[in-house]
Amino acid sequence: MGLAMDVAGLNGFIERAFPQVAGQIRVESLDEVLVARLVVDDSHLRPGDTISGPAMFALADVAIYLAILARIGEVALAVTTNASIDFMRKPQAGRDLLAECRILKLGRQLAVGDCLIRSEGQPEPVARCSMTYAIPPGRG
Amino acid sequence: MGLAMDVAGLNGFIERAFPQVAGQIRVESLDEVLVARLVVDDSHLRPGDTISGPAMFALADVAIYLAILARIGEVALAVTTNASIDFMRKPQAGRDLLAECRILKLGRQLAVGDCLIRSEGQPEPVARCSMTYAIPPGRG
Amino acid sequence: MGLAMDVAGLNGFIERAFPQVAGQIRVESLDEVLVARLVVDDSHLRPGDTISGPAMFALADVAIYLAILARIGEVALAVTTNASIDFMRKPQAGRDLLAECRILKLGRQLAVGDCLIRSEGQPEPVARCSMTYAIPPGRG
Amino acid sequence: MGLAMDVAGLNGFIERAFPQVAGQIRVESLDEVLVARLVVDDSHLRPGDTISGPAMFALADVAIYLAILARIGEVALAVTTNASIDFMRKPQAGRDLLAECRILKLGRQLAVGDCLIRSEGQPEPVARCSMTYAIPPGRG
Repeated sequence: MGLAMDVAGLNGFIERAFPQVAGQIRVESLDEVLVARLVVDDSHLRPGDTISGPAMFALADVAIYLAILARIGEVALAVTTNASIDFMRKPQAGRDLLAECRILKLGRQLAVGDCLIRSEGQPEPVARCSMTYAIPPGRG
Repeated sequence: MGLAMDVAGLNGFIERAFPQVAGQIRVESLDEVLVARLVVDDSHLRPGDTISGPAMFALADVAIYLAILARIGEVALAVTTNASIDFMRKPQAGRDLLAECRILKLGRQLAVGDCLIRSEGQPEPVARCSMTYAIPPGRG
Repeated sequence: MGLAMDVAGLNGFIERAFPQVAGQIRVESLDEVLVARLVVDDSHLRPGDTISGPAMFALADVAIYLAILARIGEVALAVTTNASIDFMRKPQAGRDLLAECRILKLGRQLAVGDCLIRSEGQPEPVARCSMTYAIPPGRG
Repeated sequence: MGLAMDVAGLNGFIERAFPQVAGQIRVESLDEVLVARLVVDDSHLRPGDTISGPAMFALADVAIYLAILARIGEVALAVTTNASIDFMRKPQAGRDLLAECRILKLGRQLAVGDCLIRSEGQPEPVARCSMTYAIPPGRG
């Protein structure tokens, strides 16, 4: 499938649309799979040097959203309608998280994607997440 | 079922265990149902005056976790293993969110709870969330 | 909210639209909450006298779907797009299952409902399920 | 990871443990990924020549369960505790379904796997499913 946006375009979009996470989340690479990084800092940690669930949720949400925009372009204003997440292992302290996302469905009304989240350099996933987005009518 | 902790005890626990959200999330009431409040501020907002998904996720996660601790006591260190969330309506701008939580299962290894989240004063829920927590062995 | 169908109408619809489950699933009562019964027989059992996951899934799916139709009428052809289910306890052998469903959102494009499933006469739920349905355009 | 069971062993297990689905569900191949087939017949169909949600749920549940047993052996009696499923496209009439499963976590207490389900010969997935199983203590 052709792509409507590239890595630089998506990272520019993060800065404009999600200023709260700009500097924390950025797209690393994009082809069939989009890889996004969470630059882990103290604000993401919970006692026991683990990364908070909401921080992982935010990474998955932004990353899958961007993987959709990469295909349909920036005009859309998709809204998350459903998320399912499995937290499977404790992330490694002191390592960024990488989310590897794929788009499974891109319909007129609904888009579905999922991702695996890993601590950088570790093979075993720390979380799995699938999300559904409602796409507003009238795009493109 | 008897309760191991009360509202003041749970709010004290938030301050010690979740300093990042202390002042933002607090328990309002507790009986069969636990009600927790997210004091909405600018850090929770997204463009369009909506409240971010991660902020709602965090509210649900903390609130259901506290509803479990209210029953088994502070000694436990439960870990979220699964979350499923439906975002159903846009929250009302300028209103706090209230999460109404119930515990559906409290087993030796797993606990399950769910919640409805509403904008304060609005009847229609903005989100629904269910979560599973793994309870470490040897509690009690 | 006004209801577009009653218990008899819904049970007649099951016979026409879901002949495979007619005689197994029926609506017991309907107001804010819809209660549906699974008449448990050998076809639903798994080794250890437990009721199969797919049988509980089918009960939840039909029951929440009917709770939506009760509100929007038989004309609609809604499609299940997402289901999340927690299996929490082993059902009691030799007892029917009752699913208690509520509709949480009834939008133009998406409807969301959830249910608790119990063995008849038992207070503790055996399963919790939430489902989303896409509603085709042009109804009503 | 070494495998404790092979394709023939898993298919023999289906016949003994799940007689209701024997002849309908069988393992096709097994390495890092397990592929299982649902031999679609009239009992799986719904009006409009679509395959019922419970039939897809059953395929995913059996297939991921077998992918776990392939690793830990037949002795275990794992129980499904959570399932999340996205129904994304209508299956093709007259084609079997193939579920492609991977195990994401195999812990002492919990195992997590997911699968994509496709109509045979079609590239686009019709459903995505993730499931968690509780593993009883004392195995192996």
